[in-house]
Amino acid sequence: MQRNLNFLKRVFSTQGKDAAAAQASGKNILYQVWGANTDVGKSILSAALLKAVDAPALYIKPVQTGYPSSDDSAFVNKFAKNATTSTLVAVEAPVSPDLAFDIASIPAVPEHELRRLILNAVYSFNEKDLSQSAKASTIGVIETAGGVLSPVPSGQTQADFYRQFRFPGVLVGDSKLGGISTTLGAYEALRLRGYDVPAIVLFPEHGSILENEHSIERNVDLEYTSIFRAPNLPAPENSLEEYFENADVVSFFQNLLGHIRFVNAASETSMAEMLSDAKKIFWYPFTQHENLDKILCIDSAYGDNYACFDPDTGFSDVADAFGSWWTTGVGHGNVGIARAMGNAAGRYGHVTLPGAVHENAFKLAKLMLNGPGKGWASRVFFSDNGSTALEVALKMAFRKRSVDFPERAHLTQKIVGIEGAYHGDTLGVMDCAPESDYNRKQTPWYKPRGLFFEPPLVSILDGVWTLDIPSSLQSNSGDEKFFGGSEAAVESSEYDGKTFTSRDQIFDSKRDGAAYSEFIAASLDAALSSGSDDLGALIIEPVVQAAGGMRVIDPAFQRALIREARKREIPVIFDEVFTGLWRLGSETGAELLGEAPDIAAYAKLLTGGTVPLSLTLAAGKVFNSFLGQSTKDALLHGHSYTGHPIGCAAALESLKQYAPLSAKRAQSESIIRYWDEGFAKELSCFPGVVGITEIGTVLAVELEPEGGEGYAATGSLALQKRLLERGVMTRPLGNVLYVMVSPVTEQKYCKSLSKIISDAILSMNEPNHDVTEYSG
Amino acid sequence: MQRNLNFLKRVFSTQGKDAAAAQASGKNILYQVWGANTDVGKSILSAALLKAVDAPALYIKPVQTGYPSSDDSAFVNKFAKNATTSTLVAVEAPVSPDLAFDIASIPAVPEHELRRLILNAVYSFNEKDLSQSAKASTIGVIETAGGVLSPVPSGQTQADFYRQFRFPGVLVGDSKLGGISTTLGAYEALRLRGYDVPAIVLFPEHGSILENEHSIERNVDLEYTSIFRAPNLPAPENSLEEYFENADVVSFFQNLLGHIRFVNAASETSMAEMLSDAKKIFWYPFTQHENLDKILCIDSAYGDNYACFDPDTGFSDVADAFGSWWTTGVGHGNVGIARAMGNAAGRYGHVTLPGAVHENAFKLAKLMLNGPGKGWASRVFFSDNGSTALEVALKMAFRKRSVDFPERAHLTQKIVGIEGAYHGDTLGVMDCAPESDYNRKQTPWYKPRGLFFEPPLVSILDGVWTLDIPSSLQSNSGDEKFFGGSEAAVESSEYDGKTFTSRDQIFDSKRDGAAYSEFIAASLDAALSSGSDDLGALIIEPVVQAAGGMRVIDPAFQRALIREARKREIPVIFDEVFTGLWRLGSETGAELLGEAPDIAAYAKLLTGGTVPLSLTLAAGKVFNSFLGQSTKDALLHGHSYTGHPIGCAAALESLKQYAPLSAKRAQSESIIRYWDEGFAKELSCFPGVVGITEIGTVLAVELEPEGGEGYAATGSLALQKRLLERGVMTRPLGNVLYVMVSPVTEQKYCKSLSKIISDAILSMNEPNHDVTEYSG
Repeated sequence: MQRNLNFLKRVFSTQGKDAAAAQASGKNILYQVWGANTDVGKSILSAALLKAVDAPALYIKPVQTGYPSSDDSAFVNKFAKNATTSTLVAVEAPVSPDLAFDIASIPAVPEHELRRLILNAVYSFNEKDLSQSAKASTIGVIETAGGVLSPVPSGQTQADFYRQFRFPGVLVGDSKLGGISTTLGAYEALRLRGYDVPAIVLFPEHGSILENEHSIERNVDLEYTSIFRAPNLPAPENSLEEYFENADVVSFFQNLLGHIRFVNAASETSMAEMLSDAKKIFWYPFTQHENLDKILCIDSAYGDNYACFDPDTGFSDVADAFGSWWTTGVGHGNVGIARAMGNAAGRYGHVTLPGAVHENAFKLAKLMLNGPGKGWASRVFFSDNGSTALEVALKMAFRKRSVDFPERAHLTQKIVGIEGAYHGDTLGVMDCAPESDYNRKQTPWYKPRGLFFEPPLVSILDGVWTLDIPSSLQSNSGDEKFFGGSEAAVESSEYDGKTFTSRDQIFDSKRDGAAYSEFIAASLDAALSSGSDDLGALIIEPVVQAAGGMRVIDPAFQRALIREARKREIPVIFDEVFTGLWRLGSETGAELLGEAPDIAAYAKLLTGGTVPLSLTLAAGKVFNSFLGQSTKDALLHGHSYTGHPIGCAAALESLKQYAPLSAKRAQSESIIRYWDEGFAKELSCFPGVVGITEIGTVLAVELEPEGGEGYAATGSLALQKRLLERGVMTRPLGNVLYVMVSPVTEQKYCKSLSKIISDAILSMNEPNHDVTEYSG
Repeated sequence: MQRNLNFLKRVFSTQGKDAAAAQASGKNILYQVWGANTDVGKSILSAALLKAVDAPALYIKPVQTGYPSSDDSAFVNKFAKNATTSTLVAVEAPVSPDLAFDIASIPAVPEHELRRLILNAVYSFNEKDLSQSAKASTIGVIETAGGVLSPVPSGQTQADFYRQFRFPGVLVGDSKLGGISTTLGAYEALRLRGYDVPAIVLFPEHGSILENEHSIERNVDLEYTSIFRAPNLPAPENSLEEYFENADVVSFFQNLLGHIRFVNAASETSMAEMLSDAKKIFWYPFTQHENLDKILCIDSAYGDNYACFDPDTGFSDVADAFGSWWTTGVGHGNVGIARAMGNAAGRYGHVTLPGAVHENAFKLAKLMLNGPGKGWASRVFFSDNGSTALEVALKMAFRKRSVDFPERAHLTQKIVGIEGAYHGDTLGVMDCAPESDYNRKQTPWYKPRGLFFEPPLVSILDGVWTLDIPSSLQSNSGDEKFFGGSEAAVESSEYDGKTFTSRDQIFDSKRDGAAYSEFIAASLDAALSSGSDDLGALIIEPVVQAAGGMRVIDPAFQRALIREARKREIPVIFDEVFTGLWRLGSETGAELLGEAPDIAAYAKLLTGGTVPLSLTLAAGKVFNSFLGQSTKDALLHGHSYTGHPIGCAAALESLKQYAPLSAKRAQSESIIRYWDEGFAKELSCFPGVVGITEIGTVLAVELEPEGGEGYAATGSLALQKRLLERGVMTRPLGNVLYVMVSPVTEQKYCKSLSKIISDAILSMNEPNHDVTEYSG
């Protein structure tokens, strides 16, 4: 599995049995040395810091330009004789690394190779036979080249390249004229990328009258960063040797080392405290606190991984295999998103939307209308989350229905839905879901108000995509007809009457679900002619019911439902909160169905996995039913942060980062593939596995039931635990253990994750299985 | 009124009758010239850009250090003879401005003075007798000193000082070694503060082999910024005169000028398009689109103001006098917030909270428990907005009640509330509000489920704080008793039986509302003994009902309600969504009441006015009622973005910025004052004004009713319009026109706003009033 290199922190700090104690005291750790500009004293700082360590220490210069006339390793070695120094890549031209490779006409060292070299250097040092006390007090320094945003050979900025390590950094400030600005600019660039910067160190030139430290200090976050002014450097004609031996200088760097060690120790202490206190102060959602076992301390996150801290074992990477509750869209710690959100916060904060317009909401609305809303939607209503977006959708649909059928307005409005549905936790949408563990005991006001259909489901059973038709729908004339369409254009010979040969076949647009229509029509008509009820909306989660257990509903069935609702002018709502915006390997669930709704709700992936923002798209005819002379006729629903510019900025940047997926999808007729279908089929044959669902970014494993049915079932808890032991965090739904990745995740990551999943499942069937220590 | 200087953009660009056309074409505008570092060519850029203008032009150097040996105005004038140059402040030492003043032992020029000087320089130029064509093509340049984050004399960074202008900027990049990093750092610092940077210009030195432009280009947002490499500068021994006359150089700067003009014109075109299209694509909350008149294009915001653009009149400032729907806490465009949110986005994105802990949620939870929750709350539940926080509160209260009284669990749960209440727009909390325009027609599922008390209200009537006791509460024995408390410790002689001598008197903690108790107790007991109903929660907005019309409820009455509910073990919920976190001049409404709830909801001001985030605090005894062996017993309510780190970071920074308010409040026993009480009393005597409410940041004017009662009343629309004509945006609640400021706003701002409000109200009573053009 491709892991990010927080792993490195652990490798470095876990040296033998006493390493935990050393680690806990925050002593042995890798630091990154950054520069506010080139030539500000990074190597002096590195040498002096390492020299202050009373033990063998490690120095890495990943990229050296101007070599050999510039050789920072040699410089460091000269003063810090206790340091093992290592230059990983060296090029001759004294220019930025990308240009230096160009000039030398050598292909630039790729990023993965540079990462590997760093890893090896740390490993080699780690293998040294150090004494116990040396192990406890050594540190490592990784010196960057140029300024924080200078490029690595690939052209990526250093601050971005090293972000996955997120080593604590010491920033060498710029003591020259203009240095206040360059230092603060470098500092802000590091902070924007989520780095900790425990210290900024200034090396004023001999005789300098500048005191940049004061202005710098006024503008940094002193809760996280301290400013140090080193003793002035010697005049150019005097030697650095003397400087390094000067008592004030020696004492200064010992203090500095003490400070950064203290900050590190304090941070670890505070994380340990967080782990113990979190259980006492948080009221976690969807959590039985009596059963709350170990929790994770998430120090930071990058891509699909969390960097977690444990007081006993230090740092390790944990795969965020449930997308932080289905939200992660563009990967954690995404610098494009951080920049976009920072810009919106600096430009606006929040500004009102009703009665106004701002660029971010406007652009987002346009993009959504031209994307998921294309061809049907003409209005955008903003709210904060999926639940509210759907409460809004409900209000829209009911009004439309009552304007269309004023004579039925006195009847009890119900919705048409599907068994297993889940639309959120606020009361209006709770009432749109049939009774289940999610709502039964949750509020005395809950009352299911729907005509709920039991749906046909598709999943991989024993290696084959299978259609499971509920008894209510089963027909005397055999179930084969459910596989085809009304035009019989899907050749029946392709089907054996129970299974599909591929997933694509399931979504074949010719499968219009004609065979389902009769039952649906009869049910709707019975309700409509009851004399007591009206049906104000059809609400479906297109294709996949997520909270319902990652169930794939036969698209032909949903097509039939939509068709029959339309015939009766029942407004159609798509709950795309989970399914929308590339979760399922297509832009929307609607696209997979080939059907457009009248109203649809989007949330979660909308902001790429950052902050709450949702929107409800609506057709013009729905909007028009709220027009009138009086404000009372308007949709009197709104949230204070309606269309907040910061969330819209995150959404705009996310949609930009999702854009290549459209091209990818266009290349083939199929849904974008993340998981290997062969692997999914194989998994479905594993002992203990009932069935597999695999669509887009989602892979779900239904396990044999245990501890009851539904959300509160416990069958998957053992597997969840084994996955966590293997560095994979999941959050099962009853007996369903699912994993998902970001829409921008690469297949090779899924492949690594697949291997861990199959190992974990297989381990469940080994008798007397002992969990072996996680080994990377 | 203290306005921000977007106003300046308008002053400069609106020169005479044809100015609108010139403005619309984006030609005459002020640009800020920024440097990635000192000595990168800002003055060369300024001179060359101004020289390219075929008309008289304006150059301002606000702060010149190293004067007179450095004199950028003289330099610019030498090459751009068409430029009127102006150095506003000059000091001798060639160091950063703050230090230069120190060295000269002169007190630093204060920021407001520097602003005034800039304003004057622009005004003076504006008064020149320019030809029509010159007016249409002139530009102005304001050259900064040093790098973007170099300080102004006061010590504030330049990028922060100039933020309120938000002039489009040209950043002169650093072409030297290390310049990629310093340029990108400077660029990100500008973007983080919400600046537009249409161009980055590089001036490579003679013979330089560096091509910093490539790496810079890869890392900027090319949608907003273009990179220009100027012809290499001459060798030091050659003259700049020649460079400036070189045909390539001349053509380069003409192109550059054309580019930034084009970007400006395109931006104005796009804003005009936004204004026309917004009405077609947005579905605004709480808006009758049939009546939708003029809308505002908000280009950016700063402090308490929006910078708005209108195609006819250009830029102007509009006071955000309703706090962007009650959210603005620390002022718009707050750089501390932008940095904190950017850091959280870069460090985490969103990460899961259930089963985990991260620093931001942890620190925020601790702060809230030690602040608003001190003494009563032990658990923090996160959700997204006030509505969801209160749905959560309801579920908590009902469960607590049913665990305490299992024998009553079969009864219909109702809540105890107050007439005029509003708790949000999702169905559960809608049902906690009595019937009103907010809910009557909004969903067929709405059903008020409460025992609602008509409350006694306090407001300023004809200059006096008056208590309005509803008839249901009025007593035969006279109403004087409602003014005192059970201990009669409030001396009755202080009261005349109808009015209060001061607002402080109203909140006197001795007023325990004993006289209200009898009626309340009888009503509660009647409901509890009905045999059909139980009372599962008391829900109140402490002190102020906001959506209900900014009504101040007699605190003695709410104290009595709470006391009587507690006697009957009915859980007490405070809806502090509006009132919490310094809206009312105290940390919470609870503090004003002197009562603690069992459950309380916070939102809006929590993130300082940035993104949705809410939380529900609960007492331990409430939490315990969800413990058990089964997950089904847990609170199965949650939102994907639970405790999102980015919102928590905004909240932490906001609470930090609110912290000085605690000290301010501690200095006196009174509520922090924003509005002048004398002014409020005066206003209450104005013709057409029924009454005034003034508390904390809020000033509300109840106008004589017109067009009905309630939210849909139209009485205040005329006043709203007149305020907008005077540059003040409000959003009335029926007949109530209110204004509010941020908790960190200074009193002098309120004073200016007060003047505009009284002018506008008085103008309503002038016959044949013509609105005069807004004049600043």
